[in-house]
Amino acid sequence: MATTTSVMRSEIADQSEALRATVDALLPLTPEIARLARETRQVLFIARGSSDNAAVYGSYLLQAHAGRLATLASPSIATTYGAKVDLSGVLAVAISQSGRTEEIVDTMRWAADCGARTVGVTNKAGSPLTEAADVALVTQAGTEVAVPATKTYTTQLAALAVLALGLGAELEPDELRRVPEAIDGVLAQPTDQLDTIVERLVGVHGAVVSGRGMAFSTALEGALKLKEACYLHAMGLSYADLLHGPIAVVDRDTPALIVAAESSPTLSGTVELARRVTSAGAPAYGIGGGDALAQACDVSVPGPDLPEWLAPIGLILPAQLITEQLARRLGYNPDTPRGLGKVTQTS
Amino acid sequence: MATTTSVMRSEIADQSEALRATVDALLPLTPEIARLARETRQVLFIARGSSDNAAVYGSYLLQAHAGRLATLASPSIATTYGAKVDLSGVLAVAISQSGRTEEIVDTMRWAADCGARTVGVTNKAGSPLTEAADVALVTQAGTEVAVPATKTYTTQLAALAVLALGLGAELEPDELRRVPEAIDGVLAQPTDQLDTIVERLVGVHGAVVSGRGMAFSTALEGALKLKEACYLHAMGLSYADLLHGPIAVVDRDTPALIVAAESSPTLSGTVELARRVTSAGAPAYGIGGGDALAQACDVSVPGPDLPEWLAPIGLILPAQLITEQLARRLGYNPDTPRGLGKVTQTS
Repeated sequence: MATTTSVMRSEIADQSEALRATVDALLPLTPEIARLARETRQVLFIARGSSDNAAVYGSYLLQAHAGRLATLASPSIATTYGAKVDLSGVLAVAISQSGRTEEIVDTMRWAADCGARTVGVTNKAGSPLTEAADVALVTQAGTEVAVPATKTYTTQLAALAVLALGLGAELEPDELRRVPEAIDGVLAQPTDQLDTIVERLVGVHGAVVSGRGMAFSTALEGALKLKEACYLHAMGLSYADLLHGPIAVVDRDTPALIVAAESSPTLSGTVELARRVTSAGAPAYGIGGGDALAQACDVSVPGPDLPEWLAPIGLILPAQLITEQLARRLGYNPDTPRGLGKVTQTS
Repeated sequence: MATTTSVMRSEIADQSEALRATVDALLPLTPEIARLARETRQVLFIARGSSDNAAVYGSYLLQAHAGRLATLASPSIATTYGAKVDLSGVLAVAISQSGRTEEIVDTMRWAADCGARTVGVTNKAGSPLTEAADVALVTQAGTEVAVPATKTYTTQLAALAVLALGLGAELEPDELRRVPEAIDGVLAQPTDQLDTIVERLVGVHGAVVSGRGMAFSTALEGALKLKEACYLHAMGLSYADLLHGPIAVVDRDTPALIVAAESSPTLSGTVELARRVTSAGAPAYGIGGGDALAQACDVSVPGPDLPEWLAPIGLILPAQLITEQLARRLGYNPDTPRGLGKVTQTS
């Protein structure tokens, strides 16, 4: 094993504290969210990169629990096509950790021009996103130095959980308060299984990362981490999408990382996928999903002790840890991936 | 070069005829679409696999040209979570070539229960999808035998172009009638550049396929073809998403296939991406995008002679041809990829 450490590793460890601060800061805002949302019927997320993966979590959470249609915007409709779209009745939720990715800020302003009400989720108070939004949800991750987002990502998920509560989801705020403790639990787990997965990923060119429903966001974000920091061709796919074609790439040299919350209605399908992967001769590595998923996988890491609606906040941690450790094992510095900066500007 | 041919290759060649029949059959339905849509304000697509990539085209087309919010549904919200979501004012457009993928039919029925009006796009008259939809748009691709969708995909795009006209997009129906001729033009092009790209992809493990806006659908569908039939780890990404992290995987051994319509407002950004890819030492292969994209790429294949809104119907053809030829070159039968059947059932 590589012996040096990284800023990314210390930021992974910061997450329970960052989440506690974020939940404390944002839970009191649910009445303000409720007031704003009264004039709207559905949610449109505006985001890129890790923030886009957070938006995927938000879309499942709001649709499964708040009775609202919640889907993802295509920013180029605003920024490149300059199209006018009827967005009356829409709550546009823009997510950007820096709060100053121009494409996201511009698309949120466009949404407002098209009739939407706006919420900005960002880690930077006073940023252009907070200035332009009707309501700002400012996460309390502190400064994040490593390029791969970790604590800014999980605190975005917490902000979206608060959004769901503000939009009337029948979920228990106290469960959200218990998230930091569950994160500590994941961080305190023995690392031998995780170490084994890292060692088996050395030399692998491509991998599939799969989850469904609430955990689809985790699959996407896990795949993004592995691409960013390990230069691994990792494809994040829901298991339904995977079976519609991409399953063909899975073979002995293409492992699948498979993620699920133990209490999810998607668990049985996820276990079925793990069996299909191993019967195709490919290694399957599990994250979460309790005994059922662990038994269907070659190696697996336990998930957080959280209900399904909050599980993605903890399920991503093993993927973050695998990424950080694998990058160092491969001789890369996970803090500064080639070709990437901390704020990405696209037009 | 491999000398045998495939059913997939002959189905690729069938496309101008299939498109002509589809446009003739569906254009007369625009008044019916308009009547149904009068009670709705936005569109929600329900699809998987290649049909999902067609839906991406539809979402850009309707938002850029018909002034309607048009986004993609998450079927598991219906089929796994069984959630109730307010879909009043929504036109749900379900796409399934077989018309009998249960997940898609069930999700469309769920959408109707939630208050949506429904359109079914399928290649099978009398299928469960046509029976359940308020309006059925039946494509005329004929029987498709090869597992990778080709003519069922491009005829879906044509059906969505008709949908856009029915929803009041200010676009010219005569341009749609000229599509079959443009397809013939692509099929009649000299093949030397395409052959060169195929040869250079031999031995490649992973590739990026990128496009933006209207052509994002082509990037996704091109990547899916390469995964299905060549087992290549091909990642379909918009260039904006690519720059937000995955650009890190691009290196000398990871080529990028880059696609754009010549008249698209996304062209300059796409050319910029090609330059960034080559400056990272990676090969860039272009599809479409005129001289500007060709000059920024190592090798490139011309696109169809079509306006941007219809270009994706022709831009996918070079990717289909590359896939079919590369699969045979690698010793695979493109008609019957491992692990896949013609109708995929997921739950």
